[in-house]
Amino acid sequence: MSGGRLIGVGVGPGDPELLTLKALRTLSEADVVVHFAKAGNESNARKIVASHLRAGVEELSLLYPVTTELPRHTPAYRDAIREFYDGSAAAVARQLDAGRTVAVISEGDPLFYGSYMHLHVRLSARYRTEIVPGVTAMSGCWSSVGAPMAQGDDVFVVLPATLPEEELERRFAGADSAVVMKLGRHLDKVRRALDRTGRLGRAIYVERGTTAEAVTMPLAKKCDGIAPYFSVILVPGWEDRP
Amino acid sequence: MSGGRLIGVGVGPGDPELLTLKALRTLSEADVVVHFAKAGNESNARKIVASHLRAGVEELSLLYPVTTELPRHTPAYRDAIREFYDGSAAAVARQLDAGRTVAVISEGDPLFYGSYMHLHVRLSARYRTEIVPGVTAMSGCWSSVGAPMAQGDDVFVVLPATLPEEELERRFAGADSAVVMKLGRHLDKVRRALDRTGRLGRAIYVERGTTAEAVTMPLAKKCDGIAPYFSVILVPGWEDRP
Repeated sequence: MSGGRLIGVGVGPGDPELLTLKALRTLSEADVVVHFAKAGNESNARKIVASHLRAGVEELSLLYPVTTELPRHTPAYRDAIREFYDGSAAAVARQLDAGRTVAVISEGDPLFYGSYMHLHVRLSARYRTEIVPGVTAMSGCWSSVGAPMAQGDDVFVVLPATLPEEELERRFAGADSAVVMKLGRHLDKVRRALDRTGRLGRAIYVERGTTAEAVTMPLAKKCDGIAPYFSVILVPGWEDRP
Repeated sequence: MSGGRLIGVGVGPGDPELLTLKALRTLSEADVVVHFAKAGNESNARKIVASHLRAGVEELSLLYPVTTELPRHTPAYRDAIREFYDGSAAAVARQLDAGRTVAVISEGDPLFYGSYMHLHVRLSARYRTEIVPGVTAMSGCWSSVGAPMAQGDDVFVVLPATLPEEELERRFAGADSAVVMKLGRHLDKVRRALDRTGRLGRAIYVERGTTAEAVTMPLAKKCDGIAPYFSVILVPGWEDRP
């Protein structure tokens, strides 16, 4: 272990008040704050912490070369994204070699569907690393609608909407409580699977929970087929309880 | 909607520094702070917030009449626990009827396997309610060991160790990433199911992650068969990624 310190910092689901005390302290101690963003867009994680950044702190923006332009399972996508993470890790390593403390900010929790992990697996064998967990996006969403999600001996699942329709159906039927992510153009397929398993009535659509732009409605009333990247479907598990 | 305000406040996995700014503000504004505990034990949630409680704030302790003394699925258990939650909701309602702001503190996140939900479902139709999400216990655990949990299109599941062995096996095989809770006397069964699905090598045992009493080790080395209530098994999903 040599050089500086790499810290993956969860900054929560969107509301800046959902930052933890530890995330704030870590940001105040960091020499460099790193964020991922789509080229041309401001990083969502950076928006969340904007008012807490130390004046003059050094920042490093890592810009995804592709997001949805190429299908995820093509060699072209995988090559582009692998090269991007390799280059990003090398840029962060240069900071660590100079003995600096590097905070990589992540929406939600760094080790739960976060880009930070691609740096972590490339660097954690060589440098001291630390993780500051955060409130996940899904917790932000179910809290914003007050939906009791899972209790007691419930089985809870997180599913990508990209799964085949029959598989979604089978997995909804086998779980007490579910969250569906990566909706995009898969919204209608997910709705059909929930309907056939008798769960459409309790499914809730949430877009950017905990932010000023939040949109929430029963999934049954969401008929335009459009779901942006940061939307989820909640299927709360609360049924007959003592 | 009448009277005061009921707020479910997530206080995170154990480290008091993992409280959110919003949880702190809510505690400072509350007239009454409510916590659940086993009779004779201090509430874990209260321990986490102890240094942040306003001097002289009113507190209400709700003491579980039973925890593990009776099997969960017996009518005796269900009756005792239903009566307890009904009585607890009535006690909280008296505070709300007096126009007071009542903060119910929950370890982790209030709507994710938390006792707060039993009050929420009994009171949310009659009183204004709000939820402050928190960092879950499982996020605290995987962060404390730096285990990349789920990525991309992964299927993630939370399973109670109480499931039958063949069902655990089937569900491990069908998920990319898993967390197992409620280990207790089920530890050996869970280990066998992970072994038979080729996942024992990457399974990690974590007890009270993020606290000073944390214990972590590869599950394969945990051979004493003893697992306290607040322990989990993590099965990280990170495999071959770009």
